[in-house]
Amino acid sequence: MQTLGYYDGKYDEIDKMVVPFDDRSHYYGDGVYDATCAGNHVIFNLDEHVDRFFNSAALLKIEIPHTKQEVKDILNEMVKKVDGDELFVYWQVTRAVAPRNHVFPEGQKGRLWVMIRPSKIGDPSKTLKLMTVEDTRFLHCNIKTLNLIPNVMASELGKQHGCNEIVFHRGDIVTECAHSNVHMIKDGVFITHPTDHYILPGISRVHLIKMCKVAGIPVDERPFTVAEMMDADEVIVSSSSNFCLSAHEIDEKPVGGKAPEILATLRKLLMDEYLTAIGRK
Amino acid sequence: MQTLGYYDGKYDEIDKMVVPFDDRSHYYGDGVYDATCAGNHVIFNLDEHVDRFFNSAALLKIEIPHTKQEVKDILNEMVKKVDGDELFVYWQVTRAVAPRNHVFPEGQKGRLWVMIRPSKIGDPSKTLKLMTVEDTRFLHCNIKTLNLIPNVMASELGKQHGCNEIVFHRGDIVTECAHSNVHMIKDGVFITHPTDHYILPGISRVHLIKMCKVAGIPVDERPFTVAEMMDADEVIVSSSSNFCLSAHEIDEKPVGGKAPEILATLRKLLMDEYLTAIGRK
Repeated sequence: MQTLGYYDGKYDEIDKMVVPFDDRSHYYGDGVYDATCAGNHVIFNLDEHVDRFFNSAALLKIEIPHTKQEVKDILNEMVKKVDGDELFVYWQVTRAVAPRNHVFPEGQKGRLWVMIRPSKIGDPSKTLKLMTVEDTRFLHCNIKTLNLIPNVMASELGKQHGCNEIVFHRGDIVTECAHSNVHMIKDGVFITHPTDHYILPGISRVHLIKMCKVAGIPVDERPFTVAEMMDADEVIVSSSSNFCLSAHEIDEKPVGGKAPEILATLRKLLMDEYLTAIGRK
Repeated sequence: MQTLGYYDGKYDEIDKMVVPFDDRSHYYGDGVYDATCAGNHVIFNLDEHVDRFFNSAALLKIEIPHTKQEVKDILNEMVKKVDGDELFVYWQVTRAVAPRNHVFPEGQKGRLWVMIRPSKIGDPSKTLKLMTVEDTRFLHCNIKTLNLIPNVMASELGKQHGCNEIVFHRGDIVTECAHSNVHMIKDGVFITHPTDHYILPGISRVHLIKMCKVAGIPVDERPFTVAEMMDADEVIVSSSSNFCLSAHEIDEKPVGGKAPEILATLRKLLMDEYLTAIGRK
């Protein structure tokens, strides 16, 4: 199949799937999601993504209608059926199907959705053009919710400026990107915003930190400023489909490019881990 | 009919309606809405609500696939077909149906949705129990979007505490409620948060201000604190389905009840306006 969707027990190609009008995603964006890539029909870091998914749901008191193992089984079965060596694996849970009312409907479990389609992991040889945007999002950015309008608007603004991603900042402090985390290398140290309510606890971020430790690169989890980022040796953007990309330009000024050996080390470790996980190494 | 739904040209009872899997409401809550009440099958303040709806959409660059008059015609036709003397009239537009990608899909118009069902205007003889909640929402509260998880979570928290609504505050400053505006009367003056990105520009709020002017009650559009609210002569909660309710308790402390004659004056003016509009006076 070219694509495969799932909603609450039903499967079909995505463009044939439909959802009830009263699903609470429609009125409130009332759900959480997670996503990762699959290679060779093996889902990468699935346990960690499913753990985070259940954590996001718990923070919003959304009841996922399956165990973690059942969610993994559904995803693993589905990923076998979609054509393509590299796939985007996306799933979400919405609170309920019920007449519109802000308070939770009683006696309802969430609805599980899945969407799988071909994708490509970002090419690390291509560096990124970024722009900064004031972070006006809510204070629950640690939860991977479906309330993403500010991320959508910032991404579109970036596209209009010919940028690959945007970098959010609250005042002087860099938080994260519209759909990635952002980090920097300065004087040999990997510096990244701490995990709090201002950023998503990225799983690629965790793996980057792990690989820094493997490579003996010191890690400093602390807020950093826009000015520090502009002056960094490297600016790194990470996500589950782009493990470790670097930026060459932010707000039309050149950045990074001064620690290519550290970048290369981290990328090799991350790519080796991925290829091993998917059975290609 | 008991209820009536509309999605992109199709009509049916709401529980029979479905929506394509790739509608962007599903991934991003990428849409805006408006809502009002109808009495006697006449939609109240429709022009103002449709104006605000188009304004919300324009702020997010969502293209509504109809003119204002066409939206009004669809709503007016639909409201005739639903049983009940008082109806809830809700409509929204979502950006597009397209494969998930943060940036706007090109060459797409929005999808119009409508949902109409029986409802009741809030009984003004019943006073409200409220609780305060820190306002952690994004900084686009002037736009009536589908990104409402903080409003949902606060409403549920209020329900768990036996409250009818919650009052958001940013630090000391009262902003609005989870699905209403909030105002206060002190020493004969009607005080309400100014319209900025912290609150929705409520249409009932506009009508309350108008009726203050009719009744010779001074209006002060300025931020006020939680402490001022607790000490107010009256705390008023307004929305398009509850024109002018008052609170008797906030955070388990008694409030208001000291300017019942002003409340009664405003309520009479608002109810007269409503009854005239729907042809019942």
